[in-house]
Amino acid sequence: MKCILIICDGMGDRPSPNYPRTPLEVADTPALDQLAANGAVGILDIIAPGIRPGSDTAHLALFGYDPYIYYKGRGPFEAIGANIPVNPGEVTFRANFATIDSKNVIVDRRAGRVIPHADQFAELLDNLTLPNFPDVKITFVHTIEHRCVLKIQDANLSHEVSDMDPDITGVEVNPCYALSDNPAAKRTAAILNEFFDQSKQILQKSPLNQERAQKNLLLVNSVLSRGAGIVPELEPLTLKYKINAACIAGAPLYKGVAQLVGMSIVDVPEATGTVETNTLAKGRAALQSLVQNDLIFIHIKGTDSASHDGNFPQKVMMLEKIDAMVRLLIDTVDLNETLIAITADHANPVSVQDHTADPVPLAIIGKGILTDEITTFSERACARGGLGRLRGVNLMPILMDLMNKSKKFGA
Amino acid sequence: MKCILIICDGMGDRPSPNYPRTPLEVADTPALDQLAANGAVGILDIIAPGIRPGSDTAHLALFGYDPYIYYKGRGPFEAIGANIPVNPGEVTFRANFATIDSKNVIVDRRAGRVIPHADQFAELLDNLTLPNFPDVKITFVHTIEHRCVLKIQDANLSHEVSDMDPDITGVEVNPCYALSDNPAAKRTAAILNEFFDQSKQILQKSPLNQERAQKNLLLVNSVLSRGAGIVPELEPLTLKYKINAACIAGAPLYKGVAQLVGMSIVDVPEATGTVETNTLAKGRAALQSLVQNDLIFIHIKGTDSASHDGNFPQKVMMLEKIDAMVRLLIDTVDLNETLIAITADHANPVSVQDHTADPVPLAIIGKGILTDEITTFSERACARGGLGRLRGVNLMPILMDLMNKSKKFGA
Repeated sequence: MKCILIICDGMGDRPSPNYPRTPLEVADTPALDQLAANGAVGILDIIAPGIRPGSDTAHLALFGYDPYIYYKGRGPFEAIGANIPVNPGEVTFRANFATIDSKNVIVDRRAGRVIPHADQFAELLDNLTLPNFPDVKITFVHTIEHRCVLKIQDANLSHEVSDMDPDITGVEVNPCYALSDNPAAKRTAAILNEFFDQSKQILQKSPLNQERAQKNLLLVNSVLSRGAGIVPELEPLTLKYKINAACIAGAPLYKGVAQLVGMSIVDVPEATGTVETNTLAKGRAALQSLVQNDLIFIHIKGTDSASHDGNFPQKVMMLEKIDAMVRLLIDTVDLNETLIAITADHANPVSVQDHTADPVPLAIIGKGILTDEITTFSERACARGGLGRLRGVNLMPILMDLMNKSKKFGA
Repeated sequence: MKCILIICDGMGDRPSPNYPRTPLEVADTPALDQLAANGAVGILDIIAPGIRPGSDTAHLALFGYDPYIYYKGRGPFEAIGANIPVNPGEVTFRANFATIDSKNVIVDRRAGRVIPHADQFAELLDNLTLPNFPDVKITFVHTIEHRCVLKIQDANLSHEVSDMDPDITGVEVNPCYALSDNPAAKRTAAILNEFFDQSKQILQKSPLNQERAQKNLLLVNSVLSRGAGIVPELEPLTLKYKINAACIAGAPLYKGVAQLVGMSIVDVPEATGTVETNTLAKGRAALQSLVQNDLIFIHIKGTDSASHDGNFPQKVMMLEKIDAMVRLLIDTVDLNETLIAITADHANPVSVQDHTADPVPLAIIGKGILTDEITTFSERACARGGLGRLRGVNLMPILMDLMNKSKKFGA
């Protein structure tokens, strides 16, 4: 038995005065409804009831790892997803090139977002030596647009430090401070603050910035770090369940979490991680990858993006694109040999434009499933389903049990 | 988004041979049914399935604090609720003035309940110095009727000691003993036993008791302690969620828990904490308090009192009084701006006359709620609701998420 697990980012939604029916209730999704009608449905509290999940903690939970135990910050997931290896002993940060004024007040958190020579700017900071911390090894790599990964490596570091990026413009850059009494956290914060000062001086002196000034472009004159993290020590699910697993995703974070739990990455050029993504290309890639894998994880980001933008029609359109992919999958696979499961990593109501803690709908179809009487796939319909109300961390064990990949607990 | 949370003490019930329908199923409650019809319903295991909650542990759970972690005994809640401050390092007890005979056998656990000079009796014991524990500071304060609060303060104390009050008459007063191997618990028990002996001698010598003997009144000649507790260290929910919250309750315990979690107390003279309470006065106070607060907690005690008395018609009457208050609330507030949630702190079936572990009904109405098809508010109807079966400790995070007051876990 194999399994295709589809996680639609931010799919769960709420009614609102403008839209009394949710995008799932409005969208025309005959394939999703077929999953519900011929399968079993339920709802998932991704972390726990009332707890708002981040995308990182949510995916750890959905892959079966309690994020309260295994989550050690976002940085490493982003790095791994961008093909930057992360090792134990390194503290990894997400970092933005930004524009600040002479008083460290943020003019643009993204230095204009499109930065033609971003790689060259990053090279100026890679392998930087800090005068007060000469033994600390610094790695600084550009990924896309204004985004970079900062890694620091040394014997005595901690990821329990604050974000320097205040997440808004017009205010001063936050100094980095320790989030615990751990002396290593205080030391790491001091390193970050020195890196900020040093990198500012180096960037400001760069001829690349003189060029930008001449062209009237925003200066790339600082680095804002956030999401400090260390790579969690976890048994990959591929080892835990002795399976081969593959990930089909557009955005780096999801590839990062997937790699950490042992999945291989299937590159689908048309999987963009945006609302433009080609869901059918993802579906075809999943069907091909199913030959050599037991578990295929398909991640769809567009539903979340539409919600963050408060764009109800776009979310409906994305759901209908997902439905087309599900149609391809259920019409192609033998449901006696392959399970299909679909859920979300968290709700992101269009009316809220951010992650909320509402439980999300789940449907599982395939051999052995105890079907229920629910025939539509939506937040409300699934709440009445035969699977009841479960936790995110329950999903992977349930799928592995249905696939007959689980070890018995006891004898 | 704001919230009014109504907790009806002991509201949950069971069918019995005499009453095959529960009080909620019998009572005429159109407003509660409207909550159910236009909102979402479910059931709550206040602590965990099958675990009988006390009122103190139940309220901790409903305010979002796992009582297995945070509950450290009842004494401090009663004291705080009676406006007696409780500090870290103090062990606090509920205490009764009682009448015992020369062999320490209990004649009346309440020394007649109505004790005209109770304050003066209490003054005799306040600041008492114990010969064998001269450094222990004793505070003894009368509250109402036969009830007092005993606090002991010293460097080396524990709340893990037994009740001296055996809760029945005709038996000897229990000696206090340690409930753990902790040496501090043994020491605290020894202090309590010495306090019992010393207070007995002092009370017996009092001219106030000579007066009572002349009037043929029961002597106030001993103090029965119970409910040893220390004040738990918890982050108030007002800080945790950055909200203002207020409590409208009649009985001291509930005010005590509410204050501990950061709520201000709204005094409503007609809120008596009995079946005589004026629920409409409480509702009006809630509406007024809503202007300056994000969360209003209304506690109604009468449902529990009626159950403890085994009085089915009185419980039905109380539910109809609650319904009148809910009518006032839903007809006054803008449900796009204010959530209303109603539940119980535990079941107290009239046929049992004590707390039971049955899950209790829950309804939530307001913007963003995924309504279900349930249209009546009762134990059985709510068991089929869209919220499913949750734990008491889940409620506050769910409400805070709906109010958009939650922090994200992860990024």
